[in-house]
Amino acid sequence: MSAIVKHVTIVGLGLIGGSVGMAIRRRRLAGDVVGFSRNPATARRAKTLGAIDRGAATIREAVREAELVVLAAPADCIVELGREAASCMRPGGVLTDVGSTKAQIVRRLEAALRANTVSFVGGHPLAGSEQRGIDAARAELFDGSTCLLTKTARTSARALAIVRRFWRSLGCRVVTMTPPRHDALLAATSHLPHLLAWSLVSSLPRDAHDAAPPSLLDMTRIADSDPELWDDIVLSNRRALLAAVDRFEGELRRLRSLIARGRSAALRRRLAIARARRHALDTR
Amino acid sequence: MSAIVKHVTIVGLGLIGGSVGMAIRRRRLAGDVVGFSRNPATARRAKTLGAIDRGAATIREAVREAELVVLAAPADCIVELGREAASCMRPGGVLTDVGSTKAQIVRRLEAALRANTVSFVGGHPLAGSEQRGIDAARAELFDGSTCLLTKTARTSARALAIVRRFWRSLGCRVVTMTPPRHDALLAATSHLPHLLAWSLVSSLPRDAHDAAPPSLLDMTRIADSDPELWDDIVLSNRRALLAAVDRFEGELRRLRSLIARGRSAALRRRLAIARARRHALDTR
Repeated sequence: MSAIVKHVTIVGLGLIGGSVGMAIRRRRLAGDVVGFSRNPATARRAKTLGAIDRGAATIREAVREAELVVLAAPADCIVELGREAASCMRPGGVLTDVGSTKAQIVRRLEAALRANTVSFVGGHPLAGSEQRGIDAARAELFDGSTCLLTKTARTSARALAIVRRFWRSLGCRVVTMTPPRHDALLAATSHLPHLLAWSLVSSLPRDAHDAAPPSLLDMTRIADSDPELWDDIVLSNRRALLAAVDRFEGELRRLRSLIARGRSAALRRRLAIARARRHALDTR
Repeated sequence: MSAIVKHVTIVGLGLIGGSVGMAIRRRRLAGDVVGFSRNPATARRAKTLGAIDRGAATIREAVREAELVVLAAPADCIVELGREAASCMRPGGVLTDVGSTKAQIVRRLEAALRANTVSFVGGHPLAGSEQRGIDAARAELFDGSTCLLTKTARTSARALAIVRRFWRSLGCRVVTMTPPRHDALLAATSHLPHLLAWSLVSSLPRDAHDAAPPSLLDMTRIADSDPELWDDIVLSNRRALLAAVDRFEGELRRLRSLIARGRSAALRRRLAIARARRHALDTR
């Protein structure tokens, strides 16, 4: 695959930012991959690990030649960093992000960039994990994964096409939707599951490690996610998340009631329906 | 490792029974591994796959020479099969099972074997999955896993030592506890997680497959478990399971309330505690 752009800049060099850099360089999708991190040691480490061609000392220096800038910082820093980056980018540059929630970020960045020639497209690669940091980054992180992009009345068709092509080149299936739809979906498929994992580990008896089957370890792996990162994600998507919690609790109460009343046949029917729903998740 | 017993019989040749046979034969732990399945085609398949040395046409024929009989049938068949097996076994034979719940099975089998010279020890290897059947069996299934054994006032010390040595030889860490303690623990660490997985997939929006992160697939894998098998497991452990559901719901409500009220600092503290609990599950 030939280079999509000459200069790509990645702002934020953690698990996602570092993996984006490694994936670009492995596939030779850009001539020059520049990285910026608030922590200079992180940028040096990213260069050592082959995630970037070079680090930049300031955001201005990092983005001024870039055709595409990927904001890969925690969700609560993205708007500020995006505003700063856009003010230094050249006309026609494309800005995208990897934040886990979209409505707030897209609304604020679109408002901030109204008088700017830089175009913003919201993005969210579904490839995060409970791991963090440049040392967890790997070039294959996005292989076969899904990347969600947002589209609004203000989204530039050209910028959307560039960002879509970029993620496809990194091995992702790309799905486009509105920011509120993104947040409602992720509330159900990611934020709620985190809440369940936290609640489940907190409800376990102290000697649970004596009888922790592999399925429990799989199910609660995301309870190891970073509290600093996740407190912001769940609070910024509060309304959609609470609705997802309510739907979940309704389902749990229905199952609980069938069990309490010993309703074997009805229970079996519900489990068969749940099983079919699980199968549908796997078939894309 | 030298053979522990000359003759082992496995009653029920599914994922667990088949894997027990393969693991015994790979490690040469018994001179003769006999298998019994109600379905003769399953026994033939087990022999083809190397899970048993030979199949038997009846339970009587399968168990009459065995020093150790492993009941690896679904939980709701174990008591009946155990009674049948014990009536044909030679004096001093040891009977064990792999049922997912223990209080009911142990109580009933101990009562049934009161006048018998065969000793029963309840067992539960924590190595099941959403998969089933002899074709999913593999010799490594128990490597590094945990097997729970039950001990009651009636448990023979000799039989417990034999069964403990058997599972250790198969690669398991063995933990012994009373049957009610087993059921309370498993309600929290296995049965409740199944309930959460079923409820979660049932609560997802129809287009969830567009945004299903790897963590959601990991978390809901057990929703693919067999309804016939699980309806019996959850109903036979109803009381402990409902208590575990209540503890879980208390934790979920606490988190929900912090989110609804935007209590960032308190939320972060709870997530940090949950994270530490998750770490404790991994350290054995």
